[in-house]
Amino acid sequence: MFDSNALFSKAFAGLKGNIIRELYQYTSQPGFISFAGGNPSPETFPNEELAEIASKVLKENSIACLQYGVSNGILSLREYIAGQMTEEGVPAKAENVVITSGSQQSMDLLSKAMLNPGDRVLVESPTYVAALKIFGIYGARVEAVASDDEGIIPEALQEKLETGPAKLIYLIPNFQNPTGITLPWERRKRIMEIVKKHNVLVIEDDPYGKLRYSGDPVPHMKTLDEAGQVAYFGSFSKIIAPGLRMAYVVCQEAVARKLVLGKQNNDMHTPNLTQLIVNEYCRRGRLQAHIEECCLVYKKKRDTMLSLLDTHFPKEMRWTRPDGGLFLWSKLPEGYSSMKLLEYAIPAKVAYVPGDSFFADGSGVNTMRLNFSNASKADMEKGIALLGEQIGQYLKDGK
Amino acid sequence: MFDSNALFSKAFAGLKGNIIRELYQYTSQPGFISFAGGNPSPETFPNEELAEIASKVLKENSIACLQYGVSNGILSLREYIAGQMTEEGVPAKAENVVITSGSQQSMDLLSKAMLNPGDRVLVESPTYVAALKIFGIYGARVEAVASDDEGIIPEALQEKLETGPAKLIYLIPNFQNPTGITLPWERRKRIMEIVKKHNVLVIEDDPYGKLRYSGDPVPHMKTLDEAGQVAYFGSFSKIIAPGLRMAYVVCQEAVARKLVLGKQNNDMHTPNLTQLIVNEYCRRGRLQAHIEECCLVYKKKRDTMLSLLDTHFPKEMRWTRPDGGLFLWSKLPEGYSSMKLLEYAIPAKVAYVPGDSFFADGSGVNTMRLNFSNASKADMEKGIALLGEQIGQYLKDGK
Repeated sequence: MFDSNALFSKAFAGLKGNIIRELYQYTSQPGFISFAGGNPSPETFPNEELAEIASKVLKENSIACLQYGVSNGILSLREYIAGQMTEEGVPAKAENVVITSGSQQSMDLLSKAMLNPGDRVLVESPTYVAALKIFGIYGARVEAVASDDEGIIPEALQEKLETGPAKLIYLIPNFQNPTGITLPWERRKRIMEIVKKHNVLVIEDDPYGKLRYSGDPVPHMKTLDEAGQVAYFGSFSKIIAPGLRMAYVVCQEAVARKLVLGKQNNDMHTPNLTQLIVNEYCRRGRLQAHIEECCLVYKKKRDTMLSLLDTHFPKEMRWTRPDGGLFLWSKLPEGYSSMKLLEYAIPAKVAYVPGDSFFADGSGVNTMRLNFSNASKADMEKGIALLGEQIGQYLKDGK
Repeated sequence: MFDSNALFSKAFAGLKGNIIRELYQYTSQPGFISFAGGNPSPETFPNEELAEIASKVLKENSIACLQYGVSNGILSLREYIAGQMTEEGVPAKAENVVITSGSQQSMDLLSKAMLNPGDRVLVESPTYVAALKIFGIYGARVEAVASDDEGIIPEALQEKLETGPAKLIYLIPNFQNPTGITLPWERRKRIMEIVKKHNVLVIEDDPYGKLRYSGDPVPHMKTLDEAGQVAYFGSFSKIIAPGLRMAYVVCQEAVARKLVLGKQNNDMHTPNLTQLIVNEYCRRGRLQAHIEECCLVYKKKRDTMLSLLDTHFPKEMRWTRPDGGLFLWSKLPEGYSSMKLLEYAIPAKVAYVPGDSFFADGSGVNTMRLNFSNASKADMEKGIALLGEQIGQYLKDGK
């Protein structure tokens, strides 16, 4: 009689894992070289200091660590984040900050608080694959806005907004995932002028912004936000460690209160221990120096990968040269498929993410995302040579 | 132009905080004595050992702690939980276990995977207030099933199931929240016979089951589950510490796979650090002895509260005498309101949870939940005397 398949919700009945998580079955095998994940380099993890801090907070502040906590997050950390944002040109108070268990959860909570089935969400093209999944779970109609090699095109966004109401605009202005592109200041200003005329919330997702290796920083879009129209997503995943699942939203109080209700009814609160560890690390003033160390490591890795691509990738290939972040974006010639290329790459024990899953409209069949932050220099050398070889073979075999 | 209030989803537009979290604004004030929360006693927290373990796993196993992890949870902990369940008469493998960030999240993930708006969910009456909130967010029609002083009435459940399809049945068989009642074995058997004839999933939520201070343990309902129809929710919140946000679901693989997709698109995974801490604590064989220590502490607290109620509560009051867990359930005479009584209790700096919010149908106006696990002996003595006094005053003033 019992048949769970007949019981799943519409959103979950046909839901599949996202491509990055699905590739994990291969990439977790020993000897596999993966450029697929968004993993920071383990050599950057400040594990000795985190160990000392974890022990200290558990000993000295055990009730705060171990008892139930508040759903919006511990006050000291929210104050720290508000202070940082204020320094970065976004005046904020603790009431504007909600601590979450990773930006994935920031996205889930905001989507849940805002989206009814059928609501429109506008996104860059391509955009972060998991965001597309989450918007889809809440039944949103996701529409891709035309983008070029400077990112989303403001006029294309304006046209979309003029055709009818949208609830959310989802943007990753710095070192975008998957393309690595940074949206120029002029476009940020233009977009903020355009959205002012529409009742729509802008998500400024910024997990990589502090990881800049060349060029000048561009101020947050939220520095131009007078109406409280931008929800800024920050994260400690790429600048301390992703396994801690620590992130935050900075937004209008009315929106923050809804996110907190979402937390109450989701996981109640982010673990106090991970919050107190990150808080202590930040309060000691360790974060800025650590980010600088990370940038040194990643700059080298980016430069290594770019030079390896120059050497090993067939001349028909194209790729971006990002100023920061973790990813670059590459294209096979038109008509070739990066999904088909996996049939060459996987047996050679090398992986990347096929790009089509980053497109709301299923285009981008010839694109791929390459991560340069995780692999060691030796693995990168071996892996890019292998991948270049397999691409050469695929191009020779034909579409 | 921007007006976030016009943008919130149907589920969130009118959403309010749950009563326990709302009371926190008072109960967190110094000098306030609260019997409202579900807080375990801080004196039971094994913080010294957790500090040593946290430091050890961060030092010795830093990548596993700090890098991205798998969405279903670390294998060693899933294997440990599967082993425990097998010993308790529920044959399980690691594939049947999903690690979550607290049972609140188990509930959210399962609801999200199963519920379309309008789906029926059957619950005990009264039941856990946050479960009602979560089912409501997913648009479920929640129906209260008649319950008596032994818990939910099997025949009443059968009648409800025969009137039409339901997706979920939500039960807390051990030391129920809020009543403290334990569902007898005969009723568990009868319910499992009844549900076999219907395509419905049973949630067996068991956060308190190991906290038994008198009487004999009753086997899990899931020991009778041949069809994979029961999703068992376990939690470390009440037997290690709630601030770690560590819990799990044991269920059919098909259901587990959907929950894992939910995790992927929610918080990606529970923090590896908290998982590894709990895993190490359990693998050292420390949990069983610790549970025994907790039971000694809580037995004393329960007995103290029962004896204080005998002394201080007006003779018109009734209350349960639970064999375990954290709560007992008390009733004012018919016609009186425990919400109104808060107007006496709050100024006297003592709190409990008014019972009506635990009822899907808004009944139970004269009921209240009292927590006996958190307050110190001195606070309990003072608080129950104060509360008894205020009840006396309210009864004298009249409805």
